[in-house]
Amino acid sequence: MKALVYHGPGRKKLEQRPMPCIGSPADAIVKITKTTICGTDLHILKGDVATCAPGRILGHEGVGIVTEVGQSVTNFQAGDHVLISCISSCGKCENCRRGMYSHCTTGGWILGNRIDGTQAEYVRIPHADTSLYKIPAGADEEALVMLSDILPTGFECGVLNGNVQPGSTVAIVGAGPIGLAALLTAQFYAPSEVIMIDLDDNRLAVAKSFGATATVNSTDGRTSLKVMELTGGRGADTVIEAVGIPATFELCEEIVAPGGVIANIGVHGTTASLHLERLWDRNITITTRLVDTVSTPMLLKTTQSGKIDPKRLITHRFKLDAILEAYETFAHAADTRALKVVIEA
Amino acid sequence: MKALVYHGPGRKKLEQRPMPCIGSPADAIVKITKTTICGTDLHILKGDVATCAPGRILGHEGVGIVTEVGQSVTNFQAGDHVLISCISSCGKCENCRRGMYSHCTTGGWILGNRIDGTQAEYVRIPHADTSLYKIPAGADEEALVMLSDILPTGFECGVLNGNVQPGSTVAIVGAGPIGLAALLTAQFYAPSEVIMIDLDDNRLAVAKSFGATATVNSTDGRTSLKVMELTGGRGADTVIEAVGIPATFELCEEIVAPGGVIANIGVHGTTASLHLERLWDRNITITTRLVDTVSTPMLLKTTQSGKIDPKRLITHRFKLDAILEAYETFAHAADTRALKVVIEA
Amino acid sequence: MKALVYHGPGRKKLEQRPMPCIGSPADAIVKITKTTICGTDLHILKGDVATCAPGRILGHEGVGIVTEVGQSVTNFQAGDHVLISCISSCGKCENCRRGMYSHCTTGGWILGNRIDGTQAEYVRIPHADTSLYKIPAGADEEALVMLSDILPTGFECGVLNGNVQPGSTVAIVGAGPIGLAALLTAQFYAPSEVIMIDLDDNRLAVAKSFGATATVNSTDGRTSLKVMELTGGRGADTVIEAVGIPATFELCEEIVAPGGVIANIGVHGTTASLHLERLWDRNITITTRLVDTVSTPMLLKTTQSGKIDPKRLITHRFKLDAILEAYETFAHAADTRALKVVIEA
Amino acid sequence: MKALVYHGPGRKKLEQRPMPCIGSPADAIVKITKTTICGTDLHILKGDVATCAPGRILGHEGVGIVTEVGQSVTNFQAGDHVLISCISSCGKCENCRRGMYSHCTTGGWILGNRIDGTQAEYVRIPHADTSLYKIPAGADEEALVMLSDILPTGFECGVLNGNVQPGSTVAIVGAGPIGLAALLTAQFYAPSEVIMIDLDDNRLAVAKSFGATATVNSTDGRTSLKVMELTGGRGADTVIEAVGIPATFELCEEIVAPGGVIANIGVHGTTASLHLERLWDRNITITTRLVDTVSTPMLLKTTQSGKIDPKRLITHRFKLDAILEAYETFAHAADTRALKVVIEA
Repeated sequence: MKALVYHGPGRKKLEQRPMPCIGSPADAIVKITKTTICGTDLHILKGDVATCAPGRILGHEGVGIVTEVGQSVTNFQAGDHVLISCISSCGKCENCRRGMYSHCTTGGWILGNRIDGTQAEYVRIPHADTSLYKIPAGADEEALVMLSDILPTGFECGVLNGNVQPGSTVAIVGAGPIGLAALLTAQFYAPSEVIMIDLDDNRLAVAKSFGATATVNSTDGRTSLKVMELTGGRGADTVIEAVGIPATFELCEEIVAPGGVIANIGVHGTTASLHLERLWDRNITITTRLVDTVSTPMLLKTTQSGKIDPKRLITHRFKLDAILEAYETFAHAADTRALKVVIEA
Repeated sequence: MKALVYHGPGRKKLEQRPMPCIGSPADAIVKITKTTICGTDLHILKGDVATCAPGRILGHEGVGIVTEVGQSVTNFQAGDHVLISCISSCGKCENCRRGMYSHCTTGGWILGNRIDGTQAEYVRIPHADTSLYKIPAGADEEALVMLSDILPTGFECGVLNGNVQPGSTVAIVGAGPIGLAALLTAQFYAPSEVIMIDLDDNRLAVAKSFGATATVNSTDGRTSLKVMELTGGRGADTVIEAVGIPATFELCEEIVAPGGVIANIGVHGTTASLHLERLWDRNITITTRLVDTVSTPMLLKTTQSGKIDPKRLITHRFKLDAILEAYETFAHAADTRALKVVIEA
Repeated sequence: MKALVYHGPGRKKLEQRPMPCIGSPADAIVKITKTTICGTDLHILKGDVATCAPGRILGHEGVGIVTEVGQSVTNFQAGDHVLISCISSCGKCENCRRGMYSHCTTGGWILGNRIDGTQAEYVRIPHADTSLYKIPAGADEEALVMLSDILPTGFECGVLNGNVQPGSTVAIVGAGPIGLAALLTAQFYAPSEVIMIDLDDNRLAVAKSFGATATVNSTDGRTSLKVMELTGGRGADTVIEAVGIPATFELCEEIVAPGGVIANIGVHGTTASLHLERLWDRNITITTRLVDTVSTPMLLKTTQSGKIDPKRLITHRFKLDAILEAYETFAHAADTRALKVVIEA
Repeated sequence: MKALVYHGPGRKKLEQRPMPCIGSPADAIVKITKTTICGTDLHILKGDVATCAPGRILGHEGVGIVTEVGQSVTNFQAGDHVLISCISSCGKCENCRRGMYSHCTTGGWILGNRIDGTQAEYVRIPHADTSLYKIPAGADEEALVMLSDILPTGFECGVLNGNVQPGSTVAIVGAGPIGLAALLTAQFYAPSEVIMIDLDDNRLAVAKSFGATATVNSTDGRTSLKVMELTGGRGADTVIEAVGIPATFELCEEIVAPGGVIANIGVHGTTASLHLERLWDRNITITTRLVDTVSTPMLLKTTQSGKIDPKRLITHRFKLDAILEAYETFAHAADTRALKVVIEA
């Protein structure tokens, strides 16, 4: 089969690979129909993800058709139309039992990282019963590709951890795909204000069209002042970090209101400064989280009922044969205005 | 001044009464600009509310202008445009300190019940600092009259207690003003389905236009079956009782899903049957609540930001001189199609 | 093997039965070392539990040694010393994923009810990976038998649902084994007062020795008044129903404080009266629950660390050969002063 | 009257000052019977607290007798025996209404900081109705002095924010008075393990006697390793920072388990390093908080019922005339083994 393979920092290749096969009774094989590229795939290609060894098929998002299941799989059978979760969850370990699937002792984020992933014609899914979701008849496959990772990530790490509430004020730092996913899902809770912060005016315009009530271009270094003006000097109740560098995290520290939350989504490679001398008595909360995908059933329901339209995140479409071009498009988003690119396998 | 006075069961009269005056340092006098009629006012007129003595000026909802404040009032001054909460809260007693203002030891629901109310030209508001809310410049007075009672009641007793969540299924029994207020505020949380149940097709049509995803006319006694069909046999995650009789409460018991909540809003005069022989192992929760109006600040924000449009509940408008006609219109809602009637003082 | 078999209302027999064997890849066979009798077993013998057919081996509590596991079992192997949960949980269905194991679509309370149970030399445990718990080296087996059902039931249905808090006032109606289990586990949260209510002075004396701060013998019908006196007229913040008849449930309605919770544990066979005419504005919560056993890992930790001593519930010990005598002892608790009886297999 | 007055960094003096008098209708004057010294008083004396101007009477803890009340005070009258909260709360502002009294817009921590404090014969208490608590008849005054600040601080900032749960593992960094207050109040929730970390073996011995299950002397720089050994490699579910320097905060980052909480109590003067490159995917929460004293009513109940014994924190007793000696004793705790020193006024 065709698969996009990581060959060390800066090197990837679309090549022929053997078909995956059932390795454990809990496995399923899924024929990929649609997949996509995540910012994390770019991190891997920079060599930033030590757990991803050369030779690995990339990708941890996708939808497809089950072609085969192991003996202990009871929820799925060949022919089922399924959504693949970016997080593999055994459902049995202590972490899974408490809903922290991201830290499943034999799963977590392994697809396209520790084991072969979804940017291929077929993929082996471990712990299939608790890592796949049935796609309802009539659902839009493209919309559901957004439910593998980006929507639950924006929702769980940003919106849920950030405790977005009706009437509250939210600031989201970073209007890339993940920040926009947080923006879309924040609206489940009817916040009064959502302020979107980014360097890119195009992305801020997109944010406005997605429901942001105000936008701040942070180029001039006056972001903190502007957010204070927009919030009557209070700051935001929820601040969502969706970039992953110290400067943006420290901006969050400046604009969070007393009693508020900083919910980190960004993948950080460097230590940030925590200004406890200013924050120790401000009654704030800071959270970090690798997505658990516990919200996937809810996201399926809200997508099906039209409460959210995940397809708005999709800007480009490619065939699997053109996946290298898809990576180029996604990697140069400032020029291409790409958000999510869907790849048809 | 003119005031609508209760004179015992079945008797009310618009008459001249002396102006109220400051009786305690925490009082304020408010000149009413708009008020409305509540279902509870009809209960009083039936003689069902023992705490309301003949001679009482009715009404516990309204907006107006502060004309005078007692010596200890610090949040308000003469000239302030204010929303009156139906619940008076001292802010000092144990119940107020835990957010249960409805059970304030020197307040709670006293306006138009234990003390004179708002269906008059002026009203005395005890505990003014913690029972009035400033109206933002440019706000629509009529919309805010809905925030005195009906919106916080639908929201707190129905939606908050009912734990409405993104993607969840909600059933609301009763599509009168209070059920519709629950319907409007339930949408703060993006439930996937809201099923509205009533005997009156007109009200069900209104419910549809307010966002209900399905409606059931309960005339034929097959409501429970229909709700089960609509929910794939599960029942509803949240069931909101907005009528106040045993039959509707017991319907709620039939249609709540395992793990779900029955949130009672209805004012009940009779004992209902609790089918514990069927419910003991169903992991359900039942809640009752007199509105605390803790959500008033949030409702002000969401109204101001346009997340909710409370004016949709208003069907009729009257002058204070025509308040008896307003009562007639409100009391015969099946004919007049009245929801909330606004009275200009 | 020897097993206690239900033969219809009023009839049970200790008899020879074939050894159980692995029927599904997720099964385990456990050699029982210790089991016990539950009040629910007596219900079955009265014919009250329609799902339990004649011919069924009774019992849903116990500890033992794994002798064989199915192919998909990964957490356990032959020789493991295990605690058996009264609730079988697949870990895969929607209810299990949200922590409501009691409503597992292929599990729940099935042991000694829909399938053969633990009052035998061996038992087949379905969904073994998510229905058994490893017993730490050096643990006391007898103490752990209390963790199969009675402790998680008292804790989850009574204490957790009842929202017991530091400083709060708790009333427990019923000082049988389950009420006493609630009493023991309520103390995890340092309530200031725990009032125990029962008809039996012996059980009330036991309750005192277990930490109750006050006891009320309810024989004279003045219980409600006495609880009001003990609580300064407020009632109890948490009221736990641990009997299962309308009279005791309705007592709970009388003694719950405004803002409080009635947490039902009792297995009810009859409809109770819900006095909504008195409760609709009291801001109370009523909960029902079949135990989910989500708290088993916590109970293992607190038992191991000595925070709780479950053995205090054990009053009598028998060999499996004497199980009929054990039933007699347990069924006549008023005379025998039995709480839990341990049976060594 | 006699009062201890701050005269700039390093300078304090016991001197004669005029009696305080009612300045607002919400004030009360309290004759101090007992007060104490807080670590924050030492911070002020170092010149670290810019809001505290020279000339200020120090102290924010104490119990006493009301001698006079302003016109709007309704909860108290002359002669009442009262506990003084370190946090003044108006009960009316948005922050007070949401329970964040520490950020009361006209209160918060002002006593002995922005206004004269309690290390004197008399003190003026603003917002008396919502900043004083009646002392129950028969209560021990000394124990209650611990409820002005140290117990609610340890409980709210450490235990509540840290989400201590039955069966969980807690690590407390710093075994000074505030760390020990967290240790005492953590036991309201029956954690299985409480690991206490400090440089001082005497304080660790005290911690053991107060209920710590393990202690680690952090002198050798191997603390992180030792905590990992004690927790089976997981780290602690709750880590409480009770020192206030970067090194101890960063230790907390090392020993928190995935899914765990770091609850900061320490007063920090310097920026700490937040190792997001290691923490971004660990699902952790970090909280900061200035005590709100919302838990004071609960602490009164648990102290009265004997669930907690705050007097254990008291090591020394002085008369007001000897307050300079009391400061010396408190400031040299390593030598004097002082925890809390009580001063009789």
